[in-house]
Amino acid sequence: MPQYTPPVRDTRFILDHVVQLDKHANLPGFANATPDVVNAVLEEGGKFVAEVLFPVNLSGDQQGCTRHADGSVTTPDGFKEAYKQFVESGWATLAAPEEFGGQAMPHVVSTAFEEYMISANMAFAMYPGLTHGAIAALLAKGSQAQKELYVPKMVSGEWGGTMNLTEPQCGTDLGLIKTKAEPQADGSYSITGTKIFISSGEHDLTSNIIHLVLAKTPGAPDSSKGISLFVVPKVLVKEDGSLGARNAVTCGSIEHKMGIHANSTCVMNYDGATGWLVGDEMKGLAAMFIMMNAARLGVGLQGLGVAETAYQNAVAYAGDRRQGRALTGAAEPAEKADTLFVHPDVRRMLMEAKALTEGLRALCLWGALQVDLAHKAATEEERETADDLIGLLTPVIKGYGTDKGYDIATTAQQVYGGHGYIAEWGMEQYVRDARIAMIYEGTNGVQAMDLVGRKLAQKGGRAVQAFFKLVAGEIADAKAQDEATAQFAGRLEKALGDLQASTMWFMANGMQNPNHVGAGAHSYMHIMGIVATGLMWLRMVRAANALLAVGEGDAKFLGAKLVTARFYAERIMPDTGALRRKIEGGSDSIMALDPEMFLAA
Amino acid sequence: MPQYTPPVRDTRFILDHVVQLDKHANLPGFANATPDVVNAVLEEGGKFVAEVLFPVNLSGDQQGCTRHADGSVTTPDGFKEAYKQFVESGWATLAAPEEFGGQAMPHVVSTAFEEYMISANMAFAMYPGLTHGAIAALLAKGSQAQKELYVPKMVSGEWGGTMNLTEPQCGTDLGLIKTKAEPQADGSYSITGTKIFISSGEHDLTSNIIHLVLAKTPGAPDSSKGISLFVVPKVLVKEDGSLGARNAVTCGSIEHKMGIHANSTCVMNYDGATGWLVGDEMKGLAAMFIMMNAARLGVGLQGLGVAETAYQNAVAYAGDRRQGRALTGAAEPAEKADTLFVHPDVRRMLMEAKALTEGLRALCLWGALQVDLAHKAATEEERETADDLIGLLTPVIKGYGTDKGYDIATTAQQVYGGHGYIAEWGMEQYVRDARIAMIYEGTNGVQAMDLVGRKLAQKGGRAVQAFFKLVAGEIADAKAQDEATAQFAGRLEKALGDLQASTMWFMANGMQNPNHVGAGAHSYMHIMGIVATGLMWLRMVRAANALLAVGEGDAKFLGAKLVTARFYAERIMPDTGALRRKIEGGSDSIMALDPEMFLAA
Repeated sequence: MPQYTPPVRDTRFILDHVVQLDKHANLPGFANATPDVVNAVLEEGGKFVAEVLFPVNLSGDQQGCTRHADGSVTTPDGFKEAYKQFVESGWATLAAPEEFGGQAMPHVVSTAFEEYMISANMAFAMYPGLTHGAIAALLAKGSQAQKELYVPKMVSGEWGGTMNLTEPQCGTDLGLIKTKAEPQADGSYSITGTKIFISSGEHDLTSNIIHLVLAKTPGAPDSSKGISLFVVPKVLVKEDGSLGARNAVTCGSIEHKMGIHANSTCVMNYDGATGWLVGDEMKGLAAMFIMMNAARLGVGLQGLGVAETAYQNAVAYAGDRRQGRALTGAAEPAEKADTLFVHPDVRRMLMEAKALTEGLRALCLWGALQVDLAHKAATEEERETADDLIGLLTPVIKGYGTDKGYDIATTAQQVYGGHGYIAEWGMEQYVRDARIAMIYEGTNGVQAMDLVGRKLAQKGGRAVQAFFKLVAGEIADAKAQDEATAQFAGRLEKALGDLQASTMWFMANGMQNPNHVGAGAHSYMHIMGIVATGLMWLRMVRAANALLAVGEGDAKFLGAKLVTARFYAERIMPDTGALRRKIEGGSDSIMALDPEMFLAA
Repeated sequence: MPQYTPPVRDTRFILDHVVQLDKHANLPGFANATPDVVNAVLEEGGKFVAEVLFPVNLSGDQQGCTRHADGSVTTPDGFKEAYKQFVESGWATLAAPEEFGGQAMPHVVSTAFEEYMISANMAFAMYPGLTHGAIAALLAKGSQAQKELYVPKMVSGEWGGTMNLTEPQCGTDLGLIKTKAEPQADGSYSITGTKIFISSGEHDLTSNIIHLVLAKTPGAPDSSKGISLFVVPKVLVKEDGSLGARNAVTCGSIEHKMGIHANSTCVMNYDGATGWLVGDEMKGLAAMFIMMNAARLGVGLQGLGVAETAYQNAVAYAGDRRQGRALTGAAEPAEKADTLFVHPDVRRMLMEAKALTEGLRALCLWGALQVDLAHKAATEEERETADDLIGLLTPVIKGYGTDKGYDIATTAQQVYGGHGYIAEWGMEQYVRDARIAMIYEGTNGVQAMDLVGRKLAQKGGRAVQAFFKLVAGEIADAKAQDEATAQFAGRLEKALGDLQASTMWFMANGMQNPNHVGAGAHSYMHIMGIVATGLMWLRMVRAANALLAVGEGDAKFLGAKLVTARFYAERIMPDTGALRRKIEGGSDSIMALDPEMFLAA
């Protein structure tokens, strides 16, 4: 049976030395996040997910959700009880504002907990995850009355929330949506249309589900500029907050899909359902992007979270399974065979997973800190820089993070050999679950286009310049620290050089033909992912060497960090050179063929 | 619903211009393979798999196999009828020797058909696929009586065959097997033990199943040197060939696995089953490798076969689905949106799949030709060279081919966006099916170790030197052909340089520490895969340019070949540089950590 141990020690190391939480104690809300409180969140939260959510992960995948004839949906056995405990223990309220019943913890702390929750049970974590996205949109764009009516019970976890964007004919291109919103005399709207792929769209965990729905009002332009956002509760809410009549929104079916079986992915039918406008008419896309940006960071975290559990199990298997002998002679001659740990190619796979999960953990937490800083930093300049950086890196954390999450899950499965393919061992579930993260909330190709097509050029390239400055500055500092740190910094400098050269190539060639930029977008996203994760490793190297120099910290743990950083430099970073060459190939061979010439049949 | 069209035109082009079938017409058996006969095999065989096997592929995945209380197993609806047609149409007998009822077609021709069969229904294709492996072992090592008793009905498809190697405690390390073979007074053996992961181990397609089983005789050494091979029919066969009593071999359970649901993966219990030694006692490993090498090439073909179908569907979807606008302005302003074909990143994904599937098709067929030549070439020198080349490249075709097959299936699924994750669209099945090919018949890590640990060094490096000579010779010829051909040859020369430098690095560092070689094995396998596939593309470029120069052939088809080759050079080949740098990183950072330091938790 699979196992999971929350990586508290690593999270703690990253919060201390990469995020440097203590330097931000003066920010609003951060004062509460004392080391003791943070430790309690990590320890107790980790314990909760490992003991309550993880045990129903494999069984939840095997059972899946069930839709009944009346349109109701039941989650797998144990989910309802686990959710009840989740709510009663207060884990739902971690990052929400105090005025709506939340604990107002920094986003960086709640993100650390969310990683554990995903690792333990990704399909479960999506129920509160979607609710958080809906809360964020209501807080940002809802009226005070809407906030007061819906948000407290969503924060507590009593009610759930969803995002309703996709329709059968459109996902990425939301200008094509057909769902209609007809204004009614009482100020409400009558919503009619079909939404698909609605995660957590219907289930039995909460007494109400607050749907946020994109629709078009009469006469709205036939493009994304004509979209408005509506709040459509499953059960209408009376002014006193009590539940009223059932609204005309039903789950038409649930999808049979590759993974995340325990999360209900619904076709939602709106048949003249009553909804209310959130924010301004025809400004729905902006409101949607508030949910979407938070969701993208959450999906990046899913890449990491699933990869971590897959990796932990691969490590355990490599220690248990005996096959063959070390190339340098039997490591344990008394045994009939050595463990998988003696084989360099098995270790190569494990080290890839280790270097990437630890690096992505740091990147996700650093990214979460930027979200905090963008809202709470003391000066406008600091807030702007943080906002620029997280805007730039959101598609990278989502796209690179989930591409790598899937790779790691696949690699961890590979360590198991044939047993990795068998359901009861649990490894193939991680691959199937990780796969969706590359697709939803904008495919990774869409992330890459967002990066090169929007984020690079915004505000005259201010964000990417800020990122280059950040990385180059830390490289310069690191070179001055000590020899070992300088060596890693030198490797990162080369990767940064490939990123900068690729950026220049886009600038020089993109104006003449934007397809040159589009053709290199995915490779560029990966170079930036390698550099950003490399920056995280640089910080870990600096901290480890500094601590070792003064004899502080756990020498074995810090030594492992240095070994893993060296692996990252030797085995991950070389890809930036190849990716740069691919970008410089341009788009000619990609755009040349007529569609009918793709098939050689 | 998914679709599949056999790529006959591409196969034909490869057989003519890469394999150059007409140059080998003087070989035994090749005279029968006239262009007309080959075309008939491709056209009719393609028609058969598309019309009979493909329609039960998705339904077979959804239904899976069922084991009944009596140990019998039924295949999904439609499989029995399809298998009956497969046998009646004679497709089972294509490559088998005439003396046992086969059609004695060249292996290269039957391989072309097998690709189509896999593309249409990988799980189905495994039933006859395993039978072919068992036939090969019996023909090579069985007694004349065994051949006459078993082989004709296996060739016809009336009986099936299996390979029984893996046990719960061992897969790769077969020295650890525990299955016992006790000699009986009548010359037979009593076989007792448990085998797992036995593909096609029990099913309802054939009246008998001839199991080939690895077991240990009393007193045999406790290593792979103590293994013997036995033939153990499910139903005992009387001397006259008729069926006798049921043997004591039963299916204990079938595995619930990630994919290939329609192939029964069985736990097989041998409870004093009657078996007969095949070949010499304690020479089972050599006999097993006859099955294994053929099986590895077949698994490499699975990588290609599944990838091809996934790719074809991605192309179809890209033409149907409308989302967004071309970066250079609306391509079809009258429509609400352009098709996915306008987006460079979608085309990047499709071109990756196209360049790799067409390249791998050529490589698999070229590899099959080497198998033919190793047996049938006129001179000992030619036979040796072919045997050297296919020995070297078998792990590459298996390992690189299936790594890429899985990547392509994943990429094709990505083109579908959210719909790719939904079972009814069929794309996620290809990913799950393709996944096993990286694992069975020796994981791809084992393939990589076979390549660098055995094949490189064998006979003083004769095989790899022959490969270098072959590639370098064709590069030199191509440079003399024309400017366009020379340009592609120059790119391949650079990739070959990375392969040669990596080989040299192993030679210089492997003696001192064999872990340096093991740590680079997987990267090395990929460089060799890129170079070998690059050689296939070089041949296609040469043929296309030569034909275009004289105004022969279909200019659009040949033009597409040249565009795709350019893509291969620009977007696939750059990886050899990064892979080489990874190899040159050696094994220090990979071997450094104590097992308990892998987890940062």
